[in-house]
Amino acid sequence: MRRTLFTQDHADFRLLVRDFLAREVVPVYEDWQRAGLVPRELFTSLGKLGILGTAIPEQYGGGGQDDYRYHVVIQEECARAGVTLGSLRTHLDVVIPYFTGLANAEQRTRWFPGLASGELYTAIAMSEPGTGSDLAGIATTAVRDGAHYVLNGAKTFITGGHHADLVIVVARTATDPDNRRNGLSLLVVEKGMPGFTVGRKLDKLGLTVQDTVELSFADVRVPTANLLGDENAAFAHLGRNLAQERLAIAVGSVAQARAAIDQTISYVRERTVFGKPVAHFQNTKFELAAMSAELEAAQAMLDAAITGLGAGELSGADAARTKLFCTEMQGRVVDRCLQLHGGYGYILEYPIARLYADARVSRIYGGSSEVLKIVISKSLGL
Amino acid sequence: MRRTLFTQDHADFRLLVRDFLAREVVPVYEDWQRAGLVPRELFTSLGKLGILGTAIPEQYGGGGQDDYRYHVVIQEECARAGVTLGSLRTHLDVVIPYFTGLANAEQRTRWFPGLASGELYTAIAMSEPGTGSDLAGIATTAVRDGAHYVLNGAKTFITGGHHADLVIVVARTATDPDNRRNGLSLLVVEKGMPGFTVGRKLDKLGLTVQDTVELSFADVRVPTANLLGDENAAFAHLGRNLAQERLAIAVGSVAQARAAIDQTISYVRERTVFGKPVAHFQNTKFELAAMSAELEAAQAMLDAAITGLGAGELSGADAARTKLFCTEMQGRVVDRCLQLHGGYGYILEYPIARLYADARVSRIYGGSSEVLKIVISKSLGL
Amino acid sequence: MRRTLFTQDHADFRLLVRDFLAREVVPVYEDWQRAGLVPRELFTSLGKLGILGTAIPEQYGGGGQDDYRYHVVIQEECARAGVTLGSLRTHLDVVIPYFTGLANAEQRTRWFPGLASGELYTAIAMSEPGTGSDLAGIATTAVRDGAHYVLNGAKTFITGGHHADLVIVVARTATDPDNRRNGLSLLVVEKGMPGFTVGRKLDKLGLTVQDTVELSFADVRVPTANLLGDENAAFAHLGRNLAQERLAIAVGSVAQARAAIDQTISYVRERTVFGKPVAHFQNTKFELAAMSAELEAAQAMLDAAITGLGAGELSGADAARTKLFCTEMQGRVVDRCLQLHGGYGYILEYPIARLYADARVSRIYGGSSEVLKIVISKSLGL
Amino acid sequence: MRRTLFTQDHADFRLLVRDFLAREVVPVYEDWQRAGLVPRELFTSLGKLGILGTAIPEQYGGGGQDDYRYHVVIQEECARAGVTLGSLRTHLDVVIPYFTGLANAEQRTRWFPGLASGELYTAIAMSEPGTGSDLAGIATTAVRDGAHYVLNGAKTFITGGHHADLVIVVARTATDPDNRRNGLSLLVVEKGMPGFTVGRKLDKLGLTVQDTVELSFADVRVPTANLLGDENAAFAHLGRNLAQERLAIAVGSVAQARAAIDQTISYVRERTVFGKPVAHFQNTKFELAAMSAELEAAQAMLDAAITGLGAGELSGADAARTKLFCTEMQGRVVDRCLQLHGGYGYILEYPIARLYADARVSRIYGGSSEVLKIVISKSLGL
Repeated sequence: MRRTLFTQDHADFRLLVRDFLAREVVPVYEDWQRAGLVPRELFTSLGKLGILGTAIPEQYGGGGQDDYRYHVVIQEECARAGVTLGSLRTHLDVVIPYFTGLANAEQRTRWFPGLASGELYTAIAMSEPGTGSDLAGIATTAVRDGAHYVLNGAKTFITGGHHADLVIVVARTATDPDNRRNGLSLLVVEKGMPGFTVGRKLDKLGLTVQDTVELSFADVRVPTANLLGDENAAFAHLGRNLAQERLAIAVGSVAQARAAIDQTISYVRERTVFGKPVAHFQNTKFELAAMSAELEAAQAMLDAAITGLGAGELSGADAARTKLFCTEMQGRVVDRCLQLHGGYGYILEYPIARLYADARVSRIYGGSSEVLKIVISKSLGL
Repeated sequence: MRRTLFTQDHADFRLLVRDFLAREVVPVYEDWQRAGLVPRELFTSLGKLGILGTAIPEQYGGGGQDDYRYHVVIQEECARAGVTLGSLRTHLDVVIPYFTGLANAEQRTRWFPGLASGELYTAIAMSEPGTGSDLAGIATTAVRDGAHYVLNGAKTFITGGHHADLVIVVARTATDPDNRRNGLSLLVVEKGMPGFTVGRKLDKLGLTVQDTVELSFADVRVPTANLLGDENAAFAHLGRNLAQERLAIAVGSVAQARAAIDQTISYVRERTVFGKPVAHFQNTKFELAAMSAELEAAQAMLDAAITGLGAGELSGADAARTKLFCTEMQGRVVDRCLQLHGGYGYILEYPIARLYADARVSRIYGGSSEVLKIVISKSLGL
Repeated sequence: MRRTLFTQDHADFRLLVRDFLAREVVPVYEDWQRAGLVPRELFTSLGKLGILGTAIPEQYGGGGQDDYRYHVVIQEECARAGVTLGSLRTHLDVVIPYFTGLANAEQRTRWFPGLASGELYTAIAMSEPGTGSDLAGIATTAVRDGAHYVLNGAKTFITGGHHADLVIVVARTATDPDNRRNGLSLLVVEKGMPGFTVGRKLDKLGLTVQDTVELSFADVRVPTANLLGDENAAFAHLGRNLAQERLAIAVGSVAQARAAIDQTISYVRERTVFGKPVAHFQNTKFELAAMSAELEAAQAMLDAAITGLGAGELSGADAARTKLFCTEMQGRVVDRCLQLHGGYGYILEYPIARLYADARVSRIYGGSSEVLKIVISKSLGL
Repeated sequence: MRRTLFTQDHADFRLLVRDFLAREVVPVYEDWQRAGLVPRELFTSLGKLGILGTAIPEQYGGGGQDDYRYHVVIQEECARAGVTLGSLRTHLDVVIPYFTGLANAEQRTRWFPGLASGELYTAIAMSEPGTGSDLAGIATTAVRDGAHYVLNGAKTFITGGHHADLVIVVARTATDPDNRRNGLSLLVVEKGMPGFTVGRKLDKLGLTVQDTVELSFADVRVPTANLLGDENAAFAHLGRNLAQERLAIAVGSVAQARAAIDQTISYVRERTVFGKPVAHFQNTKFELAAMSAELEAAQAMLDAAITGLGAGELSGADAARTKLFCTEMQGRVVDRCLQLHGGYGYILEYPIARLYADARVSRIYGGSSEVLKIVISKSLGL
């Protein structure tokens, strides 16, 4: 269905991204997969092209456009090209908004140029072994000692932690026995600080070029100047960007579902069984038609949500609805597309196999389907 | 999610419709259900209010607005009030467009004032016993005899046939053995023409106030002045309005699914089991949250399609996608909503039971899900 | 798949039932549907043939076979013939087991001959307006007054209440504030007892020949000789037969799903669209193949459960699993079969339309899918 | 639900297998996963224990029991232990039956002792690049030259090809232009024959310890004494064992779905979110209850099919129904179980992640769901 989301500026940006991916990423992507990591230089290359800093104010070298649609274009082009840029989505859509939303003047001067140029790469560390994403259970502590916090604890499931120069760590700076979500603060830990260790990479079902690591902090002395936002206010800070974080996952899900369908259409036209192209069979046609309808429903919902986000009108519940529907749609679509590939769908050199493996986490991270249903049901008065 | 489809004019029209339904329909609706029919006077009442003729040019007493959104408002308000106005949707969204699109000057003068005022009510007769909706199989014949066609044949599944003053009949006026879809014409048969008989009302699973009848034609002499559009061109004529016909069903499906969810939310809040409101159980919350997400996806898709229709940009395949997704969504939603009502959901005095029974035909009429998948798959190059 | 459940005796009984249905029921079934009721004489006819009393001891005129498979045969043959015998299943599989399990010697002499001959027809009254099936909420009271209980209250959703000569009423004979499931007793109320009124028939989505009524009791004096089982022990009594009650619904669901598939196979072979039999399309073949696999899984599970019941080894959780799976399967199957009928599937003269409407209650009564999931999850240690 | 499939002999065999897996496999399984291969010695160890040769006649060192239930026990115990023994299932359930069914006296003497002892390991080579599993398209040729066939061609998707000492190759020995399924023969190619090359291991989504390779044949001289069965009769030979091949996959699917549910029950009891065990939430209970019902339906169907196989009564269509239902069930179950693990479900060190990845091929190999639906629909007369 015809989309009305984008302007000519986005179309130009799209060509820039598309060209970059075709030249710099696609030819070497298999190496990245084998390495289980993107090269660090990727980010400076992206920075040079102006792809990274669209949301950073111009005075710090960014594009100065608070327009989420540029990030949408990046994800759509990556899906179209059959690549992922490691944890870039987390960097752009999850972490940088904390910086742009919370950094004080000094921090802006210190960090924004690097964020725009790609010299500073980021991650955020919330989950801990044993507590998952429940902020109330956070056990990492940051005890004030003069001009520093002394940070101790362990974090897990940290997307992009391997390359991160700056890690926003959620730590407990005070104890409120009545409400354990209080007393949390955001501290920016820098690569190389003594006591800060990047642990092993977790071996995942999919998303092979996106590193996910464990981090540990042993008496790390973090300057108070690295406190992001207000002390003890992390819970409120973390809630502010949730809608965009969730939309960002939905954007990826829809783009990858579209890629899966496109590839499958090509595949079934070329591949023959019993002397006929797979596309000849009514089951093939009906499966793809049904998927196409679901995909366009998701796209329409998503585009409406992105428009709402831009207008400052997207509620948390509507972001939850959008992520829930789009990621569940993706799950159904990649499963059906893989099936239409027959045995080749199970071989990793066929893109559908990776799309299938990658897709499975969409319904879990950034708010699992179950968490989203809780959010939505509250909005229904239940 | 916030909708951007309507203007203030539509909002005003909505209040008019809402008020009419509350005053004139809801109090007597149970009688209509028992009768299995709406009263003929309904249409003149609607006509007086200006609800019927929004699409008829002003010179004939209509509103002169080629704006489908007024019809959307009517369906949404009917669903909200828990009523259906018999076959009004077919009259407005399926039949009248043939008149406005094809009538010549004389026919406009003759029929349009009655269409706007509600004094002329309409139906369209395509399906025949044994051939269903496949135009190639049409056996009803219209043989030219001077200034008349002599019409013979039988039609079935005719929505609104009981009250219809004008029935557009698809009949064979020529024979093309190479393509049996050629040689068909649209003839307007008028109530009372000798040889035209309205047969029995079919007993349906749902849609009890919407009559569905059989019609028969025995040597009915139809003046050639009642030929609508070009002779032998019915196949092309019938294809022109398909997108709106299909959207119209999708509009009803989404509106009724929304009504089902709203009623269920009220029900589960009030009804207690095991000493707690049904709304208290996580299963209830999760079911309704999941439905809410699906509903909003359908609404977003539908609103985008309606906007496309207004701009003349909606393709047949996209209309098919929209009908497919919205009606399948409705099917899933009414089933889950009924389940949450427990035993009461099976008792017809609870609205959900009728919504469930009514919903089942949405996936069938106006292009079954299977037919839609054929349309969509062609657009995918399959 | 080949079934091993039945012996030659069951095969003989099957022919008896099949013959009776073909001769006595099928020719007049449409009248029963219009009346919304089976005729009272049906039961005496069935009694004469020995179909009713297989589980009643021989000394009282029954078959003396505690073999549930005879009841399975009855349901299978009804589904095959496209009929239901009103509330017979409830009478045979739900109510009579309370009599055979709990009646004392005097009661056996008084009631068993009539149960075997069909002169006594039964119902059971548990649900009350506002409390549903939660026994803790029962408000109907029976106060001891000499050799009588004085019974007051109202019951609803009473299957077969119209014809019932004996109604087992669950009433509160004592109050235990700590556990409101205690203090309940089973009283047999007889047709004609002063103060006992059969109320209106509820208008249901389906199951049109099976009457469902409201009952009211105003100072009904029930002799203490009509207490069934122990005073205040109804809760325990009612739990004993749950497994068979649930299997009985599953038996009906599987038999009717099989009938739906069989009819649909006939239909798609005969009916043509676009010049070809519907059976020609791959979608038709695939839909029916998928349904056939689901059906046979359900049948295998059900037959294993029936065997387990006969051996006294079927747990409540396994009965719940079987009802859950078989009724959910039925719901999916009748929906897909109706779809393959196109518009005819929505017309009540086609059996699939009634099978669809009838099926919807299976997932609700006799333990809704939600209640069954609670039972099953407990058995899993959750 | 209680199963009646096994005797005491099977129970004893089960303990033997369980003990072997616990001692010899589980402790080193992670090494096997890293290697992407089981060690060759595994098979001789299994042979020594008598696990491999239950179906081989006693005179050749086997168990002499044509009882498929022993193989069922092996798969069930592997799933319970969380391991797979490479391609053992293919060796036992697919390949060895060709030997036992088709080998002549000389071949029995030559090969059966090695099959029983584990010194001979096997594979079968049907699929070719570009033709998939459609026998009509086989392009590998075997041209008679005196006492040899000269074999040329390439095969792909060969399960167990890495370790195989004997590979049954389907090759074209004659050409029948009217029916390209004719003229195929089964030739046993031995490891080390000149011109026979084992190609690269395919990188799969799951089943990491089960090697899948490409094979190529360049002028391989295969003695005519290695023809298995009749010349040009491969098509008939290959059809004979299809029912057991398909059941074997269904057995694995059910056993692994059971393992997934069992692990998930343990997980949700131990793991806490928001201060409560995951098992506490109604959604968790309902999901597992629903899965448990589906699993037991599949198990009942499967056990009935295995019994039918033993009695020589299992039709190809019923084997297809069983494979279709059991593998589709597995797909639904592993997806829902993974979801209940949250983020941990995506980490390969949790067994559910591997069960998920492994499961995806079940609906494809050994007859994809689509192929099975074709088989089933034919049996329905469609």
